[in-house]
Amino acid sequence: MTVTSDDLENMAKLARVQLATSLPGPKPICLIGTRSATGSPNLAPFSSITHLGSNPVLIGMVTRPDTVDRHTLSNILETKEWTINHVTREIVEQAHQCSARYPDDTSEFDATDLTEFQHPEIHSPFVAESPLRIALTLEEVIDISSNNTRLIVGRVKLIDLPNHQIADDGSLDLAHLGTLASTALDTYFSLTQIAKLPYAKPLQTFP
Amino acid sequence: MTVTSDDLENMAKLARVQLATSLPGPKPICLIGTRSATGSPNLAPFSSITHLGSNPVLIGMVTRPDTVDRHTLSNILETKEWTINHVTREIVEQAHQCSARYPDDTSEFDATDLTEFQHPEIHSPFVAESPLRIALTLEEVIDISSNNTRLIVGRVKLIDLPNHQIADDGSLDLAHLGTLASTALDTYFSLTQIAKLPYAKPLQTFP
Repeated sequence: MTVTSDDLENMAKLARVQLATSLPGPKPICLIGTRSATGSPNLAPFSSITHLGSNPVLIGMVTRPDTVDRHTLSNILETKEWTINHVTREIVEQAHQCSARYPDDTSEFDATDLTEFQHPEIHSPFVAESPLRIALTLEEVIDISSNNTRLIVGRVKLIDLPNHQIADDGSLDLAHLGTLASTALDTYFSLTQIAKLPYAKPLQTFP
Repeated sequence: MTVTSDDLENMAKLARVQLATSLPGPKPICLIGTRSATGSPNLAPFSSITHLGSNPVLIGMVTRPDTVDRHTLSNILETKEWTINHVTREIVEQAHQCSARYPDDTSEFDATDLTEFQHPEIHSPFVAESPLRIALTLEEVIDISSNNTRLIVGRVKLIDLPNHQIADDGSLDLAHLGTLASTALDTYFSLTQIAKLPYAKPLQTFP
């Protein structure tokens, strides 16, 4: 079947959001940890997290002005720093609950019983229950004029993870770490690795 | 263990790339279909595909100037159009092979035995073997000055998928469609849905 742009416009709003957020397929799901200049911690789930570069290591994420993202964005603009915390099956319900619109003075850590982990060199909070935690510093904020969202570009300052989880080739075993994928705004997946393929070179014919 | 930014700088280049591209966790993996103004088709795998908006439905992807992305980018700038094709287990080796640096006059369809599907209203080629195919028109190209990459923003023009695959609430069953996730530049995952959670509202106590 074919769905046209007219069909999309005529869909009920919530169904269109659900379909639109499913179209890219599986996405990351991470908790973004920030702390205001006055010390209040904040956690928000993000799935728009994208690798942008490897030298230096840059990671981007997209924020919207009209959602719970707004605390994340204002804290990042104040402190130039945030954390990315992978989400596992054990904390998926708590991570999802962090998308609720809590009042400004409510910590999502308190509201969901997630545990703050404070690294001595990092102002922003980590999630203690997360197996892979990354601290970033702000490089750039880019306006996406098409729809008033923003791409926040960060440089990796520090990675915190269990010992012996980085293979000799630099790879991480995400299935072993328990990292989940997500789609839409409500759906979560566990991962089963099915292939790790060699660097592709042009061939005369495909095998 | 802790990996600092100094540790990252001192890593061997390929290991740093492998680690950096693993950090966001699972990502989409789609084949981007384009066609030059003179008619030559091109396919390239992308994992930097992100939902940007639902009204209109906008999807972004990041391109780099120095990789196989360059044909994709030049075709998009010429024709203002491209397709996104989900990758399944059945075509993962062919999709991966499309990352090889083929000469300009080689079609990745021919090189990998993937099948072109030409929709009457769309200039760019679809992948016939893909269960979910999306055509987009160019909205905006945004420079990411931190590292000379670009965010390409497209508006969804048309979605092509098997009948009865969009649920009443607008959602797609990605595990049923067979859509894969990826990480790094070489690793692919199948998906097992573990949760679909209701819209989160603030609660007095969790859960």
